[in-house]
Amino acid sequence: MRPIVTLLTDFGTADGYVAEMKGVLLSANADTTIVDVAHDVEPQDIEGARLAVARYWRRYPPGTVHLVVVDPGVGTERAAIAVESDGRVLVGPDSGVLSPALLAAGTRVVRLPIPRSASPTFHGRDVFAPAAAHLAAGNPLASLGPEHVSPIVRRTPEPHRLADGGIAGEVIHVDRFGNAVTNLLAPHGGVVEVQGRTLELTRTYADAREGDYVALIGSSGLVEIARRNGDAAKGLGLHRGAPVVLRQGSL
Amino acid sequence: MRPIVTLLTDFGTADGYVAEMKGVLLSANADTTIVDVAHDVEPQDIEGARLAVARYWRRYPPGTVHLVVVDPGVGTERAAIAVESDGRVLVGPDSGVLSPALLAAGTRVVRLPIPRSASPTFHGRDVFAPAAAHLAAGNPLASLGPEHVSPIVRRTPEPHRLADGGIAGEVIHVDRFGNAVTNLLAPHGGVVEVQGRTLELTRTYADAREGDYVALIGSSGLVEIARRNGDAAKGLGLHRGAPVVLRQGSL
Amino acid sequence: MRPIVTLLTDFGTADGYVAEMKGVLLSANADTTIVDVAHDVEPQDIEGARLAVARYWRRYPPGTVHLVVVDPGVGTERAAIAVESDGRVLVGPDSGVLSPALLAAGTRVVRLPIPRSASPTFHGRDVFAPAAAHLAAGNPLASLGPEHVSPIVRRTPEPHRLADGGIAGEVIHVDRFGNAVTNLLAPHGGVVEVQGRTLELTRTYADAREGDYVALIGSSGLVEIARRNGDAAKGLGLHRGAPVVLRQGSL
Repeated sequence: MRPIVTLLTDFGTADGYVAEMKGVLLSANADTTIVDVAHDVEPQDIEGARLAVARYWRRYPPGTVHLVVVDPGVGTERAAIAVESDGRVLVGPDSGVLSPALLAAGTRVVRLPIPRSASPTFHGRDVFAPAAAHLAAGNPLASLGPEHVSPIVRRTPEPHRLADGGIAGEVIHVDRFGNAVTNLLAPHGGVVEVQGRTLELTRTYADAREGDYVALIGSSGLVEIARRNGDAAKGLGLHRGAPVVLRQGSL
Repeated sequence: MRPIVTLLTDFGTADGYVAEMKGVLLSANADTTIVDVAHDVEPQDIEGARLAVARYWRRYPPGTVHLVVVDPGVGTERAAIAVESDGRVLVGPDSGVLSPALLAAGTRVVRLPIPRSASPTFHGRDVFAPAAAHLAAGNPLASLGPEHVSPIVRRTPEPHRLADGGIAGEVIHVDRFGNAVTNLLAPHGGVVEVQGRTLELTRTYADAREGDYVALIGSSGLVEIARRNGDAAKGLGLHRGAPVVLRQGSL
Repeated sequence: MRPIVTLLTDFGTADGYVAEMKGVLLSANADTTIVDVAHDVEPQDIEGARLAVARYWRRYPPGTVHLVVVDPGVGTERAAIAVESDGRVLVGPDSGVLSPALLAAGTRVVRLPIPRSASPTFHGRDVFAPAAAHLAAGNPLASLGPEHVSPIVRRTPEPHRLADGGIAGEVIHVDRFGNAVTNLLAPHGGVVEVQGRTLELTRTYADAREGDYVALIGSSGLVEIARRNGDAAKGLGLHRGAPVVLRQGSL
């Protein structure tokens, strides 16, 4: 099998930084399959990148290396790490962006050494891409560096139970279509309160009328606020952090 | 030969949805060559995607699978289809976006079953990508589902002949450079009337002066309104649907 | 080894032009590894593309073909060229965009013939992609066309020495993060004067406080003006061409 390395950054592509990283990967092994995940993540948007990683990291074959460089702390003391989890390996800064894999059971983490020759502003090219190439070549995690034992940044906005039995969550991301993704799981259905409205959880937009707001279970299992043929986030003024409450029952 | 799957969506890439689809394709066959066509199509812009498909679908080797997911009707009763035409296969919603292949001679169409487990909001991942992987593995079209016999959406804005002999068409797309692409073919040259101006068809911008408007035969054979080192659509106020008339003769 | 062809254009992807070029490459050899460098270069921004090429062209394995199509002169008399330099080959218009390779020692340049059938508005598809495929197949440069002897466009904004010993340069690019990249090299450190401020060259942002402006050596070796967790170009009103002076010494 040819090695697979996926690539998520907030670099955009026009400046050529991503192309430099791809050159490092292909110079190490010209047979590598490089998969562009995204480079249009908002600059330094760790939360958005974290949610994207949660969506895709397990969907790739075991052995895949996921390179994730959203790294506002480059050049500071933040650690550079590699994480092995459920047969995949993730490489990136210890900024919380790798949390979805860090939160899984049986995860191992090593700290990558920073070579003196590395550009202090571009670890993507000089630290993370070489580490990804090393792992994609089949080398074991432990050959990269010592176990990372200091506190690791794990981000996960947890909903909490209210006194009246509701579950209080929040909007964690607004996607390209204006759907507001929340941190709520609702395997048993229920109703969602958001911006003074109460919406019943449905399976799909299909039954809603043009312009209606709906609450539904998104493709990752999280509750989303959407609008039939419209932009829910704009229509309701929803931003990251907006409060949402889930309650049992129906309308 | 390694299987080739091209991918056109309106998902953007930052949210990670496209990465999920790529994971499905590579988990089915890690040796697949995935070609990013575009993910920055305007959300739900079936017309723009249709024109792009018309440009590229025949340029790939026979056996290529084109995955096209611009799908405002996901979760409704719209059919999910696969189309075999001229040696290539296209997979996507029956929204008109696959019209360029549907309009070719000798085309076969099957309807894809929707598994109960499919997310009602993400057929790209749960219906279309698995079907594309199945076809890329060399399986025959008929193994995917029954022939699709209900009316199929075929979109094609046809010019019509005017009483005075002119041919009335329209702008069907404005490209990134501000060129307005029309639905007019003009193999014998002529003049083009647009927004009160009359422009003679030329082969290229080369003879025009800085800022001049020109009508020329674009790289797909369609008449385009362009501006030498400028943005014709902005300059002339041209949007999709703007009327254009082609006449014989010269200025 | 599978042939590698990288692709940099200012076409965007939504219109399908890039997909046509990829189809040409894969139809010539389905086993080609196509690397997307960028397609979101500002339309006709030769300077921005030139700087990106400078960053990545040598980072790929020898034998790599770099296809670079930022081509405001398409359809005019500007030459179409292929450049062999340091084991890599670059294909594109003679617009200055290939300068980084043209300025290296031992470079050879040939002029590509323009077939009569080529669309005068899309040499990317009909001239450059076929030439890239021909070279990626291992054919020698000389088999493409005659040596290009007419004057070649080489762009390189050179700093110059001031009477008082300072070195006067300029901003040549603003990247996605608002860092202003200059044409100054500063291997021995020093101070940088920009917009009435004097900044000492540092190695990284790490020591700066939130919102501070810093001058540092970027990952390509060029002096950059940056802002700790901010946008230096916006904050200081820096655009391409803004004057910057480097002086010896420290603050």
